[in-house]
Amino acid sequence: LLSKSGGKGPRLPVYTGEVGPVWAYPETQLDCLVADPKKGSKMYGLKSYIEYQITPNSTNRPVNHRYKHFDWLYERLLEKFGSAIPIPCLPDKQVTGRFEEEFIKMRMERLQGWMSRMCRHPIVSSSEVFQLFLTYKDEKDWKMGKRKAEKDETVGVMIFSTIEPEGLPDLDLIEVEQKCEQFSRFTKSMDDGVKDLLTVGQEHWKRCTGPLPKEYQRIGKAFQNLSSVFTSSGYEGEATLTDALTDAGKTYEEIAQMVAEQPKKDLHFLMETNNEYKGLLGCFPDTIGVHKAAIEKVKEGDKLVAASKITASEKAGMSKRASTMSYALQAEMNHFHSNRIYDYNRVMQLYLEEQVKFYETIAAKLRHAHSQFTTM
Amino acid sequence: LLSKSGGKGPRLPVYTGEVGPVWAYPETQLDCLVADPKKGSKMYGLKSYIEYQITPNSTNRPVNHRYKHFDWLYERLLEKFGSAIPIPCLPDKQVTGRFEEEFIKMRMERLQGWMSRMCRHPIVSSSEVFQLFLTYKDEKDWKMGKRKAEKDETVGVMIFSTIEPEGLPDLDLIEVEQKCEQFSRFTKSMDDGVKDLLTVGQEHWKRCTGPLPKEYQRIGKAFQNLSSVFTSSGYEGEATLTDALTDAGKTYEEIAQMVAEQPKKDLHFLMETNNEYKGLLGCFPDTIGVHKAAIEKVKEGDKLVAASKITASEKAGMSKRASTMSYALQAEMNHFHSNRIYDYNRVMQLYLEEQVKFYETIAAKLRHAHSQFTTM
Repeated sequence: LLSKSGGKGPRLPVYTGEVGPVWAYPETQLDCLVADPKKGSKMYGLKSYIEYQITPNSTNRPVNHRYKHFDWLYERLLEKFGSAIPIPCLPDKQVTGRFEEEFIKMRMERLQGWMSRMCRHPIVSSSEVFQLFLTYKDEKDWKMGKRKAEKDETVGVMIFSTIEPEGLPDLDLIEVEQKCEQFSRFTKSMDDGVKDLLTVGQEHWKRCTGPLPKEYQRIGKAFQNLSSVFTSSGYEGEATLTDALTDAGKTYEEIAQMVAEQPKKDLHFLMETNNEYKGLLGCFPDTIGVHKAAIEKVKEGDKLVAASKITASEKAGMSKRASTMSYALQAEMNHFHSNRIYDYNRVMQLYLEEQVKFYETIAAKLRHAHSQFTTM
Repeated sequence: LLSKSGGKGPRLPVYTGEVGPVWAYPETQLDCLVADPKKGSKMYGLKSYIEYQITPNSTNRPVNHRYKHFDWLYERLLEKFGSAIPIPCLPDKQVTGRFEEEFIKMRMERLQGWMSRMCRHPIVSSSEVFQLFLTYKDEKDWKMGKRKAEKDETVGVMIFSTIEPEGLPDLDLIEVEQKCEQFSRFTKSMDDGVKDLLTVGQEHWKRCTGPLPKEYQRIGKAFQNLSSVFTSSGYEGEATLTDALTDAGKTYEEIAQMVAEQPKKDLHFLMETNNEYKGLLGCFPDTIGVHKAAIEKVKEGDKLVAASKITASEKAGMSKRASTMSYALQAEMNHFHSNRIYDYNRVMQLYLEEQVKFYETIAAKLRHAHSQFTTM
């Protein structure tokens, strides 16, 4: 693990930023739009599939990909960067209902989320295989690029050999271990926090789409029912009351509808973001595991030197490489933190904005219903 | 039932109003305030009880009564007017927890409701026994009045003999029967409607004080938990996010509290009013039963005339008395309708007003929570 060196491929520098070690970020951030899912077919219609159009902001030229191409890309990225960078899983494969509109829409939204996250990662987005995926010129170009990517040798822990902490001092074992422990603790507790929010959110979703609107509907029906009983009284001059009561009843039925539809407007994005993070956080134990294994090796190193199995210079090389790995992890964690802050700030704003609209609309509807009654 | 005539006591006229037959209404409506529950005791402290202070707007002089006095009054009113006027039950008797603050407050509120309803009834409120209850001068006055009321002979169906439809034509049997049927149908369907609303309201109450605030609380805790995980990241400059997230979490905890306390502010009055009406409507079958029995008697009358068991003039007297009863029922129904319109208009306004405030407050709280996040 720590003995290999001199991997091929472009150098991946780590700089010192305001927050500590950081990757090199491009001036313009890559992004892409996943859109326009279309049914395609192969083998004279025997096999059909859904093809998505992906347009990167770098070329503005759309390319087409099927889900299995995304999956191929995921496998390449995982193989190449997985030891240093957590590569989140793709949205689930699904066998049945693949051609249903609802499913296609949801999958597209999630592929968009996945692609945007990959685009935002400076190492991933600048890699040859990722660029191939986004900018291949024709079928031949794609096929050739695929073959080349599959033969890439700078995969697994080899990626660390391409990482170059620029002007950063070597870290000692204690520092490396401390950083590793800190990130391990953080990702674990964030994983717990995210899962907790997801559980709560799922229950809330169920209530908002199940018993709660049913209850508002029943309240609405009860008011309307009472109104129609009142109408049958034969007593003169109670039209104002019965009309207002019917109106109030209908308002509660509208509220029922609103309650049931609200989660799609706000909770949905909160859940999607947390689901993404759950996936991302699920990759960290592996990434961190690689670091822990390296730390153990360096610890053993001392004994091996004592037993003359390796030279002091070989041991020093191991320490240096562990230091490099730690810088990579720190750069990755800083990347993670900055994205996390951005994502949670954005999703919370969106959630609260929609929640405010929701409660304001209800208040306005009820205010109108209230105004229908007579002031005595 | 129909053969008695010439009951003692003041005449109870029925006039023709805009809506049909109506009771004679006083110019100033009687009302009273039930307040200031105090613990009293008797027999050197061996027996203790709660005494309420009742102040009628007619004298502005408070009198004191225990629950058992209300119960005595209820019995007198039921005995005297029950055949013609539905006298709603008093709030439940209760053996345990009689001296608990919550219970006393609730009982007082309900006694107030019951008294206000009785005050609003022109026949009940002007009766000697009701006036005694509200305006007795001293213990001696009260004792004497009680004895007199208990000896009152104009009770049960005798009350009809004091009712005088002023300038109203006698109704024929078909009309009497139709009116009776109409009121019977109406009170039955209103009874169903009210019970339905009560069931729905009770379920809503349970949800609002049970699982729903718990859920908002858990959402709030999940946000705050995530915020404290974020705080532990060691990453610089995310205080804005973590503070905002904590704030959002606390806001949802406040919303939880609001949700749990809301039913007391709005649903409570809706439920109390409907409970009162449930009680009132429960008295109608008896009142209507008296009328149905009278109608049957008149129907039999024809056979009795044919069999020479009664004279045609006696039969005519029976018809006249059935007509008087029908006028009394119509006056009572019109009284009921007018109060029903007033009560439901008022309670719906109150309910919706509080609901509007509730949703507006939530929206304002969330708007503030939203403003704490950074706009990027």
